[in-house]
Amino acid sequence: MRIPIDHQSNTAMYKQISEFLRESIYSGSLQAGTRLPATRQLARDLGVNRITIANAYAELQADGLIYSQQGSGTYVATPPALPPCAKKEENNDHLPPWQQQLQEQPWMPSTRFLEALSQKYARPGIISFEGATGDSRLFSIDDFRKVIQSILRRDREEALDYGERAGYSSLRRTIAQILTTQGIAARPEEVLIASGSQQALALVIQALLHPGDTILVECPTYAGALDLFRAYGLNITGVPLDEKGMCVEKAEEIIQREQPRLIYTIPNFQNPTGVCLSGYRRRQLIALACNHNIPILEDDFVGDLRYEGYIQPALKALDPGGWVIYVSTFSKMLMPGLRVGFLVAQGPIYERLLSYKRVSDLATSNLVQRALDAYITVGRYQAHLRRSCQSYRRRCQAMINAIEHHLPSGVRFIPPKGGIFAWLQLPHNLDTLKLYPMACEEGVAYTPGFVFCCDSSGKDCLRLNFAAQPPEMIEEGIKRLGKTLQRAIKTYAI
Amino acid sequence: MRIPIDHQSNTAMYKQISEFLRESIYSGSLQAGTRLPATRQLARDLGVNRITIANAYAELQADGLIYSQQGSGTYVATPPALPPCAKKEENNDHLPPWQQQLQEQPWMPSTRFLEALSQKYARPGIISFEGATGDSRLFSIDDFRKVIQSILRRDREEALDYGERAGYSSLRRTIAQILTTQGIAARPEEVLIASGSQQALALVIQALLHPGDTILVECPTYAGALDLFRAYGLNITGVPLDEKGMCVEKAEEIIQREQPRLIYTIPNFQNPTGVCLSGYRRRQLIALACNHNIPILEDDFVGDLRYEGYIQPALKALDPGGWVIYVSTFSKMLMPGLRVGFLVAQGPIYERLLSYKRVSDLATSNLVQRALDAYITVGRYQAHLRRSCQSYRRRCQAMINAIEHHLPSGVRFIPPKGGIFAWLQLPHNLDTLKLYPMACEEGVAYTPGFVFCCDSSGKDCLRLNFAAQPPEMIEEGIKRLGKTLQRAIKTYAI
Repeated sequence: MRIPIDHQSNTAMYKQISEFLRESIYSGSLQAGTRLPATRQLARDLGVNRITIANAYAELQADGLIYSQQGSGTYVATPPALPPCAKKEENNDHLPPWQQQLQEQPWMPSTRFLEALSQKYARPGIISFEGATGDSRLFSIDDFRKVIQSILRRDREEALDYGERAGYSSLRRTIAQILTTQGIAARPEEVLIASGSQQALALVIQALLHPGDTILVECPTYAGALDLFRAYGLNITGVPLDEKGMCVEKAEEIIQREQPRLIYTIPNFQNPTGVCLSGYRRRQLIALACNHNIPILEDDFVGDLRYEGYIQPALKALDPGGWVIYVSTFSKMLMPGLRVGFLVAQGPIYERLLSYKRVSDLATSNLVQRALDAYITVGRYQAHLRRSCQSYRRRCQAMINAIEHHLPSGVRFIPPKGGIFAWLQLPHNLDTLKLYPMACEEGVAYTPGFVFCCDSSGKDCLRLNFAAQPPEMIEEGIKRLGKTLQRAIKTYAI
Repeated sequence: MRIPIDHQSNTAMYKQISEFLRESIYSGSLQAGTRLPATRQLARDLGVNRITIANAYAELQADGLIYSQQGSGTYVATPPALPPCAKKEENNDHLPPWQQQLQEQPWMPSTRFLEALSQKYARPGIISFEGATGDSRLFSIDDFRKVIQSILRRDREEALDYGERAGYSSLRRTIAQILTTQGIAARPEEVLIASGSQQALALVIQALLHPGDTILVECPTYAGALDLFRAYGLNITGVPLDEKGMCVEKAEEIIQREQPRLIYTIPNFQNPTGVCLSGYRRRQLIALACNHNIPILEDDFVGDLRYEGYIQPALKALDPGGWVIYVSTFSKMLMPGLRVGFLVAQGPIYERLLSYKRVSDLATSNLVQRALDAYITVGRYQAHLRRSCQSYRRRCQAMINAIEHHLPSGVRFIPPKGGIFAWLQLPHNLDTLKLYPMACEEGVAYTPGFVFCCDSSGKDCLRLNFAAQPPEMIEEGIKRLGKTLQRAIKTYAI
């Protein structure tokens, strides 16, 4: 145990010790039942006389904060309640000036806002279409447990070392092979493993942009990307979407006006709208980027989850050489908590991204990378993907049917052909943030649309995740959403 | 399999497909032995006629790039060697202009430089005192394997979900308890889990500083921190160290002149010098920070590894409230590849740091956090720490003895009392980077001192990690270093 002692202080040493312990007990950092060190031990640790410790303990014992147990030692008791004003941290007047300044510039990621919103209106039995992952119940934990076992038995210490900074080489080979089957000719040395695709996006921003630079995005787009761009001080400029994805023909004018340094796009089953960029527009977008010397950041977070229609080539597959940085992840499909994503890049930018990876967190967990690689290599990933795809296809259909059946006719919506999201636009300018508490009352939750927008649009929109619930829950949840909308239309007397 | 097809192209469709596959085979992304999809399957995937696929396959087969196996399918053959100019990526003339610009502004983290240096001069039998971790052979992999097993059995999907963004709450409680025993009164809600202490440092920089701001550091200091500060565009200003750590009395003048926005310090067993900040200077530093309204970033990466002398309170333990952000890690002592570190902060800065954590990578691997928590809670961490401490104490002594015995008398060095590093200053202005190849020839490797310096100093210094080698290897390694120095002194005719 380390206790700070000021030898120059006017406060007696035993008093300094007892005060420190008192504060620790009241603050909860020394919890009831914790065994304190023996006086001899603590005296040695602190370089003080044993009597000093005995005096400190005696005082705390007299106050009922600790107790001795014959032959076993001294323990922390449950402290009596303090008067409410005693917690000095509640009073921000004592904060350092630099912290007070921070307080005056509040900034909160929208994901934090959504979490707080969801917690505030949570109630039992709510059917939530929030969230941005698949259904983890479809995943076989036991398979994965066995894989980790075999990795630790096989690789021993090596699995717990830093490993290669670009990522475990066998996993990079595996990823390159998977991408090749998807038309992306990536070599292992062009793959960089990151701690989730969120980190991959952050690395690209750090390596390519400066605060004050402009980035072009689809509007609406992934809220976590907007959070990142805002945190980095970027100007965000949006291009609208239609059922064929980003309206690339409108992008040229915006590019000329705003001079963006990067184009961020989600071409497949876009978050939040669920739409896919058409093949024609994909080629248009590449040409636009090349003509204006702008790199493309392609976020392909669920490209594998197609339930109908033809696959379009990834932008990366159309890349004439070094223009597109491709980002993807295993998190959505497998286990978000593993935090393994990756990017693919060619040219000097790859080395730059690797440098930012090093300064950001040195490397991604080696053990998890090795486990993931083994899991994929023995074919379990592919099997899981097939199972998930079958299941999500049914859920997608259930969502489409339920929307058509239970929601009022003014609701606009493009039936998704894959992915995990559906996007609704409500009639009568209904504000989906204001509506949220009412929906929770009716027993259904969604993500309000404004968080996906870089401007003031999206207020009358909402996002539904259809992958995380079985069909019968989807049916019931959308029914409840229908009730909410009818109530809202009545309440606001539209 | 996804293959990009351009329906508007003048190139026949079968040719587009065969060219794509050819490129994939030559680039190695489709490896020899890989089974190709059946023609029927691929035709369906790509939405083309089966004959088109058959033609493409026939062409590749004629070129010996693929082969059919009766009743089993079509496989990738080992491709014949290409003439060297055929790899277009080697030719940087085809790079996009924005990538050519990157090429003109090269920037490399020193850790990358060191890795390349070490690889260049690697030879069998070399005794390396490089590296910055303990000895992973002391760690019981089997204990850890069992812990992961029990976590996955107990927590199931929950262990693979994102979890709490600030970190697994039980692990945060455990950390708060450990810190309390070290005199740091931290509450679980003041602890933030990061992907290694490197990420914790990065979060603090992002949350508090802007490019162009000045940061005050010890000179020399942790090279990975310098890399981070440079990547973020900070001005770095150094304060010298002596055997009592940072010369705080010299810092005041520098602070007045340079107006730093943050003080970064490693008070315990500093990296690379191994010295500890004295108790008096700790209090001086806190007072200085408060007087000048500057936050302190305290990096306590091996504070637990003391082999002699008294423990000084952490700066965080002396914090009058919200001034010190404390960063530490389990990586050095346990398994660097796990990537779990943490920080402790009070006041509005905590929430700000959490926001940057979210945008950086959403959360740290939940499974790994849970396993680590269980490992610590059952007392295995403490047992491992005790074992490591005993072992490293002997190695530290072996290093001190060997240096005194084998190195020429002009070598200056402060015997470490803990940690994992010793720091040498060579006589005659010997340049430790220039000496490195000679040392490797003699069969010993160290880290050249210049990488730890924010200015042009440190060229005649080197860092030794004594924790990663058993005593007999330390003795032998230092003997070889002695030979190197004697040879150098002769060679350079000093």
